[in-house]
Amino acid sequence: MEKNKVIKAALLGVGTVGGGVYKLVKRQKEEFRHKIGTDLEIAKILVRDAAKERPGIDSELLTDNWQEILKDDSIEIVIEVMGGIEPARTYILEALRAGKNVVTANKDLLAEHGKELMDEAKEMDRDLLFEAAVAGGIPIIRPLKQCLAGNYITEVMGIVNGTTNFILSKMTYEGMDFEDALKIAQDLGYAEADPTADVEGYDAGRKIAIMASIAFNSRVTFSDVYTEGITKISALDIEYADNLDCVIKLLGVARHKEDGIEVLVHPMLISKKHPLASVDDSFNAVYVHGDAVGDTMFYGRGAGELPTASAVMGDVIDTARNIVYHCTGRIACSCYKDIPVKKVDDIKSKFFLRMVVSNTPGVLANIASVFGNNGVGLERVLQQKVEKEKAEIVVVTYPVEERHLRDSLRIFDGMSIIKNIPAIIRVYGE
Amino acid sequence: MEKNKVIKAALLGVGTVGGGVYKLVKRQKEEFRHKIGTDLEIAKILVRDAAKERPGIDSELLTDNWQEILKDDSIEIVIEVMGGIEPARTYILEALRAGKNVVTANKDLLAEHGKELMDEAKEMDRDLLFEAAVAGGIPIIRPLKQCLAGNYITEVMGIVNGTTNFILSKMTYEGMDFEDALKIAQDLGYAEADPTADVEGYDAGRKIAIMASIAFNSRVTFSDVYTEGITKISALDIEYADNLDCVIKLLGVARHKEDGIEVLVHPMLISKKHPLASVDDSFNAVYVHGDAVGDTMFYGRGAGELPTASAVMGDVIDTARNIVYHCTGRIACSCYKDIPVKKVDDIKSKFFLRMVVSNTPGVLANIASVFGNNGVGLERVLQQKVEKEKAEIVVVTYPVEERHLRDSLRIFDGMSIIKNIPAIIRVYGE
Repeated sequence: MEKNKVIKAALLGVGTVGGGVYKLVKRQKEEFRHKIGTDLEIAKILVRDAAKERPGIDSELLTDNWQEILKDDSIEIVIEVMGGIEPARTYILEALRAGKNVVTANKDLLAEHGKELMDEAKEMDRDLLFEAAVAGGIPIIRPLKQCLAGNYITEVMGIVNGTTNFILSKMTYEGMDFEDALKIAQDLGYAEADPTADVEGYDAGRKIAIMASIAFNSRVTFSDVYTEGITKISALDIEYADNLDCVIKLLGVARHKEDGIEVLVHPMLISKKHPLASVDDSFNAVYVHGDAVGDTMFYGRGAGELPTASAVMGDVIDTARNIVYHCTGRIACSCYKDIPVKKVDDIKSKFFLRMVVSNTPGVLANIASVFGNNGVGLERVLQQKVEKEKAEIVVVTYPVEERHLRDSLRIFDGMSIIKNIPAIIRVYGE
Repeated sequence: MEKNKVIKAALLGVGTVGGGVYKLVKRQKEEFRHKIGTDLEIAKILVRDAAKERPGIDSELLTDNWQEILKDDSIEIVIEVMGGIEPARTYILEALRAGKNVVTANKDLLAEHGKELMDEAKEMDRDLLFEAAVAGGIPIIRPLKQCLAGNYITEVMGIVNGTTNFILSKMTYEGMDFEDALKIAQDLGYAEADPTADVEGYDAGRKIAIMASIAFNSRVTFSDVYTEGITKISALDIEYADNLDCVIKLLGVARHKEDGIEVLVHPMLISKKHPLASVDDSFNAVYVHGDAVGDTMFYGRGAGELPTASAVMGDVIDTARNIVYHCTGRIACSCYKDIPVKKVDDIKSKFFLRMVVSNTPGVLANIASVFGNNGVGLERVLQQKVEKEKAEIVVVTYPVEERHLRDSLRIFDGMSIIKNIPAIIRVYGE
């Protein structure tokens, strides 16, 4: 163990998260000596425009020249908080090749190029840590990789997008429609002007890909993830869910089944008794089931300056400790299996369907027989709202492979008594 | 990094948790090569009676001779799951001095002799890991020590005793009295024949002492913890709590305030909206507030064979990795501060009091004036149940230093209009 030195880190990017990291490094100055045995300092900060004034940031640290950081051998840790695929990918690869350790919060990059980056880190025996890439401040990567390492993890399920959870909470507790709730989220800065990545489930998809890779020790990339967003969820669906003693959440779901990995993002009806059901507003939570530990859940702030910086700092302190103890790379890529990812057609789920149908005798019998002929069992049928010529039928199926449901839907498509199917939402449970 | 060797561990004790660890080591045999880079095996098991047959356990591993393990230099990890203070303390100290790493689930020992053990581990640069000592399978020690290392943690609050949580859940949801709920807990094996350590809060007290030490980087021992159990909680108190939109939970509470550390175990009214409120039955959860991360919570099984073994295995795999990378001792004792622990008298809380009083005019004014004269502000006053000559007054105070409350109680003691004060329970909040 090497004491009394200074460990130098460089920040790539000093936006929201980078600014938070900069603050925490200053705030924890005294603590580092005790926690790591050395001082820790931010020696350089890479920005696009080094001339721009940034309040609270020592302008002497700013540089717009990556080579200046890359070639500085005194910098042992690169903290990548710039986001996006390029140039972040190139910088991280170059940093690792130069023998630096990397801490990143970049979920987009990891969910697409994780293998390439992890391979390089392993080759160089350096740390590549990314606690902040999933669920912001919530400790989840280290618990999955280390604390639960004695388990076969069979399920990871998370509310990992605060924007959509905020929108769904507004819809649930204030009866708002999606568009109104989205507007409020945008006004409050929770949702971006183009909210696609959040509301279509892409952001959650990247996070669940990363968690699935770690939990099941097998590489899952974003392109493996089936995603479905919340734009079609209506206040009426939420009301029906409530009648079924459920709430609707946007969930990232990953399961290790005998025939492969299932990995999806979609809205889901989940019992109010499930611990995830009471995770509201912009909070995140990840629920994990392991064969030994049983059910566990990790809850907290999934985004924001300081929560995300908290996760980055945990990693920075850990890698600094590894530098001191000459054991960087001690926890390398854990994807040592090659488990196939199942097609969504082959995944079993329970479904909630809200169908607008002709208000004629025999319509329910017709629907039931189509489901029956396609092997779709019905657990519940409600026929609650009836207009003059239309009825609304709500069914909850037993777990069924998705292709059987789709076969039924194709037949409904050609039936004049079925006017419209405004909602098809998965339901948690066996 | 040293690959392709076998790391040998010895189990001290093979009861519930030890049996679970033995099972998991077998179950995960194939995984170790990938996770650690070596094989991992249980080479010896220390028991009192080596001749006793133990189904499922290889009898050749059993020994009743500690020296056989201590002197065996091929054994690099000692897993202490025997419990109790002695001989566990001596064995752990001897193991560390012999250069072995130690994983323990022994909260009693750590809460009393933690410093001595940690000092020895530090001296020898060996690992002393104890994830299983607090909240069973829930990852909490590693998150506190590593993931949240960039925070000043100000509050840790946990439901860390499954027995009392089960009893309180029965009382809350089925209207049972304490004695009946305890009986059921005993019949189900959740509570021991002598339930004192659980119901009086001693078990929770040991766990909160350990968590406080880590969270605040300052040694807190069990003797610093003020404990109050749940034996006096009645179904009526739970009903009143419900009216106040609260539930009653037995909480381990640790706060870092400007004037010192507060560390207590007591029943508490907590808002139904708080994430801890819905942690029911034998589940545990630990809620942590850090200056950067904000609120986080960790939820899961706090006891049981495999959940606890899961935590032990996480530690075993971690120390095995450190052995491979020659970096044992990389995370040593983190109690580098010396913050005073406050006396309970000086700790501010809100209180719920249920008082049986004479049903005479002016009694409420009398009570209010005693509180007022002693600096105790009242947030709520209810006078709900009235018998012939008795009234029941329930008050909720504003936060007040405990000694002011006790001053009031001393005066009530001498007042004939106060018949009895059957419940004094703390209330969460500012």
